Amino acid sequence: MTNRFVRSLGRHATLLLLGLTLVPTVAYAQESVSQEMFTVNNTWMLVATFLVFIMHLGFAALESGLTRSKNTVNILFKNTAIVAIGLLTYAFVGFNLMYPGDFSLGQFFGFAGFGLNPSPEDMTSAYNVGYTYWTDFIFQGMFAATAATIVSGAVAERIKLGPFLIFTTIYVAVIYPIAGSWKWGAGWLDQMGFYDFAGSTLVHSVGGWAALAGIIVLGPRLGKYLENGKIRPVAGHSMPLAAIGVFLLWLGWYGFNGGSVLSADPALVSLVFVTTSLAAAAGIIGAMVASWSLQRKPDLSMVLNGALAGLVGITAGADTVSVNSAIVIGLIAGVLVVASVLLFDRAKLDDPVGALSVHLVCGIWGTLAVGIFSTNPDHSFVTQLIGVAAYAVFCLPSAFVIFLGLKATTGIRVTKEEEQIGLDLSEHGMEAYGGFSITRS
Amino acid sequence: MTNRFVRSLGRHATLLLLGLTLVPTVAYAQESVSQEMFTVNNTWMLVATFLVFIMHLGFAALESGLTRSKNTVNILFKNTAIVAIGLLTYAFVGFNLMYPGDFSLGQFFGFAGFGLNPSPEDMTSAYNVGYTYWTDFIFQGMFAATAATIVSGAVAERIKLGPFLIFTTIYVAVIYPIAGSWKWGAGWLDQMGFYDFAGSTLVHSVGGWAALAGIIVLGPRLGKYLENGKIRPVAGHSMPLAAIGVFLLWLGWYGFNGGSVLSADPALVSLVFVTTSLAAAAGIIGAMVASWSLQRKPDLSMVLNGALAGLVGITAGADTVSVNSAIVIGLIAGVLVVASVLLFDRAKLDDPVGALSVHLVCGIWGTLAVGIFSTNPDHSFVTQLIGVAAYAVFCLPSAFVIFLGLKATTGIRVTKEEEQIGLDLSEHGMEAYGGFSITRS
Amino acid sequence: MTNRFVRSLGRHATLLLLGLTLVPTVAYAQESVSQEMFTVNNTWMLVATFLVFIMHLGFAALESGLTRSKNTVNILFKNTAIVAIGLLTYAFVGFNLMYPGDFSLGQFFGFAGFGLNPSPEDMTSAYNVGYTYWTDFIFQGMFAATAATIVSGAVAERIKLGPFLIFTTIYVAVIYPIAGSWKWGAGWLDQMGFYDFAGSTLVHSVGGWAALAGIIVLGPRLGKYLENGKIRPVAGHSMPLAAIGVFLLWLGWYGFNGGSVLSADPALVSLVFVTTSLAAAAGIIGAMVASWSLQRKPDLSMVLNGALAGLVGITAGADTVSVNSAIVIGLIAGVLVVASVLLFDRAKLDDPVGALSVHLVCGIWGTLAVGIFSTNPDHSFVTQLIGVAAYAVFCLPSAFVIFLGLKATTGIRVTKEEEQIGLDLSEHGMEAYGGFSITRS
Repeated sequence: MTNRFVRSLGRHATLLLLGLTLVPTVAYAQESVSQEMFTVNNTWMLVATFLVFIMHLGFAALESGLTRSKNTVNILFKNTAIVAIGLLTYAFVGFNLMYPGDFSLGQFFGFAGFGLNPSPEDMTSAYNVGYTYWTDFIFQGMFAATAATIVSGAVAERIKLGPFLIFTTIYVAVIYPIAGSWKWGAGWLDQMGFYDFAGSTLVHSVGGWAALAGIIVLGPRLGKYLENGKIRPVAGHSMPLAAIGVFLLWLGWYGFNGGSVLSADPALVSLVFVTTSLAAAAGIIGAMVASWSLQRKPDLSMVLNGALAGLVGITAGADTVSVNSAIVIGLIAGVLVVASVLLFDRAKLDDPVGALSVHLVCGIWGTLAVGIFSTNPDHSFVTQLIGVAAYAVFCLPSAFVIFLGLKATTGIRVTKEEEQIGLDLSEHGMEAYGGFSITRS
Repeated sequence: MTNRFVRSLGRHATLLLLGLTLVPTVAYAQESVSQEMFTVNNTWMLVATFLVFIMHLGFAALESGLTRSKNTVNILFKNTAIVAIGLLTYAFVGFNLMYPGDFSLGQFFGFAGFGLNPSPEDMTSAYNVGYTYWTDFIFQGMFAATAATIVSGAVAERIKLGPFLIFTTIYVAVIYPIAGSWKWGAGWLDQMGFYDFAGSTLVHSVGGWAALAGIIVLGPRLGKYLENGKIRPVAGHSMPLAAIGVFLLWLGWYGFNGGSVLSADPALVSLVFVTTSLAAAAGIIGAMVASWSLQRKPDLSMVLNGALAGLVGITAGADTVSVNSAIVIGLIAGVLVVASVLLFDRAKLDDPVGALSVHLVCGIWGTLAVGIFSTNPDHSFVTQLIGVAAYAVFCLPSAFVIFLGLKATTGIRVTKEEEQIGLDLSEHGMEAYGGFSITRS
Repeated sequence: MTNRFVRSLGRHATLLLLGLTLVPTVAYAQESVSQEMFTVNNTWMLVATFLVFIMHLGFAALESGLTRSKNTVNILFKNTAIVAIGLLTYAFVGFNLMYPGDFSLGQFFGFAGFGLNPSPEDMTSAYNVGYTYWTDFIFQGMFAATAATIVSGAVAERIKLGPFLIFTTIYVAVIYPIAGSWKWGAGWLDQMGFYDFAGSTLVHSVGGWAALAGIIVLGPRLGKYLENGKIRPVAGHSMPLAAIGVFLLWLGWYGFNGGSVLSADPALVSLVFVTTSLAAAAGIIGAMVASWSLQRKPDLSMVLNGALAGLVGITAGADTVSVNSAIVIGLIAGVLVVASVLLFDRAKLDDPVGALSVHLVCGIWGTLAVGIFSTNPDHSFVTQLIGVAAYAVFCLPSAFVIFLGLKATTGIRVTKEEEQIGLDLSEHGMEAYGGFSITRS
């Protein structure tokens, strides 16, 4: 378990560089803490876990809100299944791939065996001063499924259910944890000094690269890009649902980032709450200004994505940048998301929910921003760039191979008729709003 | 307050049997803890309390999502009122019926008097190492109302509002706490060795038996079972609302089960998070496979109910079964819920939301599963069966008596005309979507 | 930072008067606590922070649910923008206006400078035994935006977006924190003995007075008050959304009130959970009885507002009244909200969501209730009345000046055509339910 302790230490080292050396964090830097401190830390990590859990509802709501009502059952089904697949495969192989302890192939790959087998000592602070083995597993397991969920939004309204679930299973069980081991599992990128606090790259870009592969292999939705070169906007069916999604994602981010402190350290967790909140707020303002300027109207979906952009952007450096830097990072992320939504659309990359712009573009931005704004002099722009590139080189081709393999065997796209009818009736034989009727208005 | 301490001890004793004897839980097993530990414990219990609170929104959303829009106002009204009735009656009589301290009628019934009257000492760890008197009351009070809410879904779309509220008041104020006292109040079933960690039986089956009585007394909705023997499916009016409900219930379950540890014990609470999560995930998979096999389509409502089935199933033994057993329990619960939804429908027991299948069937399954999978050798299948039977024998007839009494006096079913118009207009004079209009599509 | 410590002391002093003198709260009353206690306290305050955050989703859902679907995008946009504006302006000026340390203009106004500049020591219990500087800022920042959000509901469906955002910015950046400094910043009302635990006046009435000004300056929605003197009810477009809003607000209130203890003190936080819960429950019952009596039907929106009424009502005294008093306060609040909704409508004050009744009327009621029910003999009805009047005298004219200034320059109301089309198309060029279609029913 040494590597996990190393990781924990690595993250907390930041504290010393924020000029907070007077803080009595010695409690965290040593191997033992009081049972009381262990209990607080573990309790906070479990709170963070349920916050990350609720992000799955956030993704489900956002994705169904931004798409048409004829595909809603399909989207809810996918997002429910992903949580189950994510947690179970992470128990079976993912956790032990991501935190292998010893690497067997350079610092690129290691596997600690199937299943979960803690010792009694793993329930104590001897495992980690911040959490038990079970807490470690379930917190990380909640993260795992989010990467696959990001893909779901990008390929919505046209992918076949079965192949999507197969893709998800492989990606979350194998690709995500191996990629993750390079940094959080103390692999080669960690040793090189690459920094990604809570996963701008390890989670969001990893999901984003797969989204890009899916979009390219699948092609755009019918009628989205017209022959005359015009782009037909496809309206979402429920903006309240989309807003619920974004607010729940933001809520969950307090666990996603706040829990990535890996303890209840008062100085660090509260700093992370502030950088996370202000980056999200700045993302909203950035997107509002950009959308009002570029689109000549205040676009709600842009503003909602602006909040997420700020959140993804701050994720890599939430504990290592100043509060003012967090605002700058969020502002830029908010502008970036608007610009890239418009650009991807021109490039005919049909992304129904803006997943590429939010998770891939802002994931990359957030990771590079560490190299620019970090208060830790050990963080370097070049190393951050190498990290970004490494994940691109591994994840994008991996996702292509899986998607193309599925295309060649099971097929991955529904028929034109099915797409026009909607996936709810064609794939599930039911409607999202079957019992809905309005009598008065 | 000795009995509450006994209960607490009884639950934690499990830990010793999980092979975790090296864990320094001595802090919990003795009567005094540091003020710091008391504060962490109490804080966690209050977090668990607000998580259980949000389950009421989960129930409201699930129930309204799975029914028709013409009855939505009525359902939301019922579920809002239930929370109020549940909390206030629990303050007035329920808490003191459920935890009577001394029993006055064998170990079957006791009553500690009306209202809440803590002493200053009850705000300290002298009351319990895990929580204050107020925390104890509010955590248990949040549980109480859930039993009545379960009934709400089963009798939806046809029950009169007034009589339903009267039923709820009696059931939650009297039946639920007396039944609960048998185990959690240290009554006869507790002394016999019956085990129900967080309420597969004490909450879910207790609600489920009343749901069964209500369904039988009320009869099915108009047009549900046709004369030619065919079953007409009644589509829910909003699957996103149903999904929101299930995810919020799952979220709440981290408090429902996690709080039932009755302290922030790191080893136990984190174990409970893992068993709870994996049982829910397995429930989804079980229901997905069963539904795809039996119904030839991946049914979203089955998968959503599968998550709940896994959660209800693990509730009795979340702290006392292994993680692998939790997966098996959840898988079986997921299959059971699909099978029983189909069977109850054939038996013409019209249950709009599948409450019987989720709460009664899986509540029983989870309780018996403790007898099969528990790592505690003191738990026995026969004792678990006796417990299940005892609650059936007490709750089902009690619920029948109340429902039949109401039928004979106030009447319990709306008229045919009212049912056809919908309860929103007939009972409340308003519509759920009165200001809703679509201009474009 | 002495003033914050004073505030903290002032709140905890209540404990001594609840007859809980035996409670070992000495830990809180002294200037230093163990690092463990500091960590628990800070963790609870961060949990309270994310609970208050989710209230913004609650407000957004409630407000859009109770209005027409043609204005939904506009409402969601406003509520998203308010969170961003609130947090950023609070970081820039609000926090240092509200907690100036030293006052420069009597005890009425002080300003500690722009931006956030904590010292390393501010991350320790030397700053406050309950939280770090960052936690202090983010908890209070989450509160700030809620005052502006209250206004949003009252002026919905007819206000222009730009001017509303300007109003919000000024009100939340300047008026709210200056007003707040009088009590929580240890200003003149605090020194006079005025008491407002979590903001019945400082947050809810402050928002309510601005709502009143906005309603008067804007005038009613088209077609609301007919020439023949009749009142045309405007139905909300989604009662499930309204219910989601109310339950999330209630959930958030556990942080709003529970966090206002400013530490994790077991006795106080658990008392606050109980008074808050029972007041909300009693508010539901009060509104149910009043609505059933006065309107001859059980009105869902009244019952939902009843819960909020109880919550606003208990907010000023949640830590200083008995549990039985909390029930009485909630019951009266529930009746008050129904009566005042009907009365404001007769007075042709068009308040689409009942914000005046909930936040202003019950905010005043809750503040006065402290003078009636408080267990602290230092609290006096007269002082509470002076406090209520002081906020009226400051906030109402301030809001009028801003609204009238905007009316004279930018204009504040959309045109008749825009109002009839709806603000979604006229202000944002998009619809809330553009991709929504129903095929079957």
